[in-house]
Amino acid sequence: MAEQTTTYPKTPANTVNRYKHQATYDAERIHTIINTTPVLHVSFIPDPSDPMPTILPMIGQMGLYPGDSSTGDSAQKCYLHGYVSSRLMNLAYTPTGLALCIAATKVDGFVLSLTPNTHNYNYRSAVLQGHASIVDDDAEKLWAMELITNAVVPGRYAHTRVPPDGAEMQSTRILKMRISSASGKVREGCPEDERKDLKRENVLDSVWTGVVPVYERLGEPVAGPYNRVPGVPAHVSEFVSGENEKRERYASDAARKAAPLKRPKKNED
Amino acid sequence: MAEQTTTYPKTPANTVNRYKHQATYDAERIHTIINTTPVLHVSFIPDPSDPMPTILPMIGQMGLYPGDSSTGDSAQKCYLHGYVSSRLMNLAYTPTGLALCIAATKVDGFVLSLTPNTHNYNYRSAVLQGHASIVDDDAEKLWAMELITNAVVPGRYAHTRVPPDGAEMQSTRILKMRISSASGKVREGCPEDERKDLKRENVLDSVWTGVVPVYERLGEPVAGPYNRVPGVPAHVSEFVSGENEKRERYASDAARKAAPLKRPKKNED
Repeated sequence: MAEQTTTYPKTPANTVNRYKHQATYDAERIHTIINTTPVLHVSFIPDPSDPMPTILPMIGQMGLYPGDSSTGDSAQKCYLHGYVSSRLMNLAYTPTGLALCIAATKVDGFVLSLTPNTHNYNYRSAVLQGHASIVDDDAEKLWAMELITNAVVPGRYAHTRVPPDGAEMQSTRILKMRISSASGKVREGCPEDERKDLKRENVLDSVWTGVVPVYERLGEPVAGPYNRVPGVPAHVSEFVSGENEKRERYASDAARKAAPLKRPKKNED
Repeated sequence: MAEQTTTYPKTPANTVNRYKHQATYDAERIHTIINTTPVLHVSFIPDPSDPMPTILPMIGQMGLYPGDSSTGDSAQKCYLHGYVSSRLMNLAYTPTGLALCIAATKVDGFVLSLTPNTHNYNYRSAVLQGHASIVDDDAEKLWAMELITNAVVPGRYAHTRVPPDGAEMQSTRILKMRISSASGKVREGCPEDERKDLKRENVLDSVWTGVVPVYERLGEPVAGPYNRVPGVPAHVSEFVSGENEKRERYASDAARKAAPLKRPKKNED
């Protein structure tokens, strides 16, 4: 029986060794990074005799299927949708499942400081490791399809032609990963330079330092050639305007915060 | 002696089996996707006895070092900068180098169609495989540091306190990957649905179909607390305005194109 902890355990596999103060093991924070990143990068080893990994871009969401929680399993899983090749299928059908690593990274700003070495990004990243299997149960598959569709645009599933028919159910493959290890890393704040450069008047007088905020922006929706619905429905237009406001504010706020190393340290080991 | 081909060879490792018409093996196109993606996802296997890959977010650029080209090697390599742990260092110091997979994905739009199954993204993605080693030569390392700094903001390197001093050279690790396999995939265009749904009047009358363009936007630069340079220098402000115009136009144009399956097929096998 797997229990959802509020923090993931620190193990040799996930412990962040550099800039520890930027690391997080908080489950909610890690899940939010995964859930708000439109493309997850999913790595696995196609051929166990060849130590060369591959990466597939996939769409994914954290979720707890009611059928799992009813058995007392309260651990959120990562559900993935994308092209599942027959090779990947066969690998995922082994008893232990397929070993996967999933990464999500959001760039929030370019941090331009006095020297190339102190340049940085404001960003949020999360890495999960675990084992994945194909979802066979139709009820769970339908639940995951709705979860993943609504992750792209909230409420979208109910505004489409559903339920999927037999052929669509057949052709859709959902991977479900049980998480064995997870960590996140967040950098926000203004530039920070070393004391040796902060004492150089000529450097301070000539190098502009600051942050260029970066965020994913959603443009004006463009109706397709066979669209017959007039205007843009509220579930799309409200999502676009709400997200744009939220994302711009996050990046802009992150650019204005104090530098991470100068903040009071909490929970640092 | 490695020669840069204009297209990467198709091998079992990189051949795109699904939606072949969206695949590309064109070197310039693949390199551009890598070069314009602010974070690359880099996968490797930390422990050869455990088939679990890990992923690090890193900054990278394609480049051909003059010292390589002078020996007749015309193949572009992928130079990576990021935190190189001592574990990663040791792995990269083996004679063959470290087996890496690098992926870059740009989301250009959410494609909202009639059914959840036909929903899609407009996107550009590239995947490289190869072996990487640590750059030991100081001249090549400096060259790569300039390449990577200027990839974030063009011309930035010359506008900072350079050259890096001895301690900075020492602490900076650059990985250089020789590419053995590469492929890309691009989806652009309006939604496309199946004939069965395009014949359903009630579905066409009720489901909005179209594309929400998505692009990375650069916000107004925010000066840092110890900045003394008045205004925003041209190398930053012109980059911000130029990129914003270019990125918005790409996503908006991609949303308006014909659906990929309906376009005349070229080079399809």
